[in-house]
Amino acid sequence: MLAFSDGMFAIAMTLLVVGIGTPMLEDGGDEGALLEAYSDLFHEILSFFISFAVIGRYWVAHHQFFGLLRAMDYPLVGLNLVYLAFIAFLPFPTGVLGNYFDNPISVASYGLSIAIVSGMEVVLFRRAYRAGLLVREMPASVYRWGVVMSSLPVAFMLLSVPVAFLSTIVAVACWFAVVPLQFVLDRYRPAESKDWF
Amino acid sequence: MLAFSDGMFAIAMTLLVVGIGTPMLEDGGDEGALLEAYSDLFHEILSFFISFAVIGRYWVAHHQFFGLLRAMDYPLVGLNLVYLAFIAFLPFPTGVLGNYFDNPISVASYGLSIAIVSGMEVVLFRRAYRAGLLVREMPASVYRWGVVMSSLPVAFMLLSVPVAFLSTIVAVACWFAVVPLQFVLDRYRPAESKDWF
Amino acid sequence: MLAFSDGMFAIAMTLLVVGIGTPMLEDGGDEGALLEAYSDLFHEILSFFISFAVIGRYWVAHHQFFGLLRAMDYPLVGLNLVYLAFIAFLPFPTGVLGNYFDNPISVASYGLSIAIVSGMEVVLFRRAYRAGLLVREMPASVYRWGVVMSSLPVAFMLLSVPVAFLSTIVAVACWFAVVPLQFVLDRYRPAESKDWF
Amino acid sequence: MLAFSDGMFAIAMTLLVVGIGTPMLEDGGDEGALLEAYSDLFHEILSFFISFAVIGRYWVAHHQFFGLLRAMDYPLVGLNLVYLAFIAFLPFPTGVLGNYFDNPISVASYGLSIAIVSGMEVVLFRRAYRAGLLVREMPASVYRWGVVMSSLPVAFMLLSVPVAFLSTIVAVACWFAVVPLQFVLDRYRPAESKDWF
Repeated sequence: MLAFSDGMFAIAMTLLVVGIGTPMLEDGGDEGALLEAYSDLFHEILSFFISFAVIGRYWVAHHQFFGLLRAMDYPLVGLNLVYLAFIAFLPFPTGVLGNYFDNPISVASYGLSIAIVSGMEVVLFRRAYRAGLLVREMPASVYRWGVVMSSLPVAFMLLSVPVAFLSTIVAVACWFAVVPLQFVLDRYRPAESKDWF
Repeated sequence: MLAFSDGMFAIAMTLLVVGIGTPMLEDGGDEGALLEAYSDLFHEILSFFISFAVIGRYWVAHHQFFGLLRAMDYPLVGLNLVYLAFIAFLPFPTGVLGNYFDNPISVASYGLSIAIVSGMEVVLFRRAYRAGLLVREMPASVYRWGVVMSSLPVAFMLLSVPVAFLSTIVAVACWFAVVPLQFVLDRYRPAESKDWF
Repeated sequence: MLAFSDGMFAIAMTLLVVGIGTPMLEDGGDEGALLEAYSDLFHEILSFFISFAVIGRYWVAHHQFFGLLRAMDYPLVGLNLVYLAFIAFLPFPTGVLGNYFDNPISVASYGLSIAIVSGMEVVLFRRAYRAGLLVREMPASVYRWGVVMSSLPVAFMLLSVPVAFLSTIVAVACWFAVVPLQFVLDRYRPAESKDWF
Repeated sequence: MLAFSDGMFAIAMTLLVVGIGTPMLEDGGDEGALLEAYSDLFHEILSFFISFAVIGRYWVAHHQFFGLLRAMDYPLVGLNLVYLAFIAFLPFPTGVLGNYFDNPISVASYGLSIAIVSGMEVVLFRRAYRAGLLVREMPASVYRWGVVMSSLPVAFMLLSVPVAFLSTIVAVACWFAVVPLQFVLDRYRPAESKDWF
């Protein structure tokens, strides 16, 4: 299952590039026309790198999560497939974002897609904890900390959905604001969590 | 062979997203136009998730089947490649279904494609049983049960082909009706099959 | 290297489906129009399955070849990358074949592409034999037999190139004629080759 | 991480073929029209093989680098994801190069993309050396030699960017000139590097 998940992450991340269409210029295109086409593609290229960073970050987190597991049961396999369905779906909202970078609808739909991925991560973690599938007994304080920390991206991604209709730039800032926040909050983590995350 | 099969499943499932085309709006598109484009894409997105669930279910079943094998012979490798050909083919009927969700032809062709995948699963199971490739001797009652249970989806998928011309919604319902039915029938399974499935 | 080769085969075989374009009908398309579109796509679907079978056969052969190797040296890694380049290239001539099934140019270019893949197989085998990279000493008679048998597809594929300009159907028949011929010739194989192929 | 990196290389290399569009001729196309279409596609096919060779060469180098590692730390995982992002990006400049082979902008953007990939390789090597992640203590002379040799492609790729505006053919020659140069310089390598590269 880990190899299968890794494969889907690798394919989804590489497929993002298909969203950057090759510019089609009439008459073969001279230098100025191609340079202009490149500047038109700036948002598509930016979306590729944003999405690659976002999915890459989830891949690292998913890998760490699998490292905590001692076994999987059928519900966890099913939930993991739901999680992977939304990972495999991401090249679509990424492509839309690249084409309509300033449009609240595309920014909101991208934020919503990532919020679902993030939410599924919390669901997977809860299932593994409750069904006793972790490598060893996890202290309740460590579990609560893990739930809080993995719920933070859900909150920020959901927040970006309404914010997109006020300002798309602030909404995109929301997506990345969670990284320094997690860094700061890391100081207040329970001491016993050191062995886990 | 297992790694190769897993890889093809992962790629086929991720390629489904290519079937959801990025909407191309004139003049960059305002909010209303993009929202409308999204509602036009509803069936394509729905087809993506239906197909992801269907292929994911076959991946789990295929994985379980490989867990029962002690070895593969050349005919089984060949049959498995035929099976994988139809798995790799699925993004095409999925894309057609997404574009023509209410059209009996697209619903019927999708149902037929899945029926062939399901049928190949029965063929693989028969070959492995008859050529003695299972990890240990399988009781005849367990084998018959396995054939019945894996033939059920074939029957329902074939049934959906003519039904699609009467009602496409009922045909789609046929695809999923098999899941609760298998759940109910599971109560009548032979006791000795517990060690197998 | 084996996992990498397997991955490229799996991806190339799954990407073939991208060559079957989803039909784009005006006004959503009624049943008759979609049925007609399907019959227009018949050659593209046929090309998908022909190419899947052809690449699948090379995958099995490539896998057997890796099973004979004790080690790889740099020239063999380089030659294997050249071989994989032509495997990764195959979705292109397959797509062209699907669109222009009756055109001598597309049939000839497909035959030529497969001839190069087949020829690279002979080159890989020669390199492994001459550089002493096989698991154990191979008798000269077995080596000669292996070269003859793997050169047969090259000859038939090259033959199909000029034949395509006389009859595209006979050219396609050439591609598959090699399978029964190899089956018949298998009777005359040297006795000591049983441990090898 | 190695399997994940290998997967991304395999997918990026196979996706290059998507950049070669199937020619769309009116009225099915006769032989002459298809032959002409093929000659129009010559630059796209050439770009596929150039890019396959270039990415293949980086895959071999990346594989050798992983063979020198004893462990990875988080910064190295992060840097490796940045490296892979540019590998996954390469099908885009390759597609542009195929369509506008004689255009300085497309040649320069391809050279720049490869320069970044090459530069990231130097960064990965420095990080692994300084953080003590190599399998054993590397002599300073071997490290300096490795930095010089992996910086050479960066220099030649960056050089090709301005050169492209003078002559695109000379710029393409720059990309490949580094191979014989590395071959010649190999004679002056420090004796103690034999155990490393």
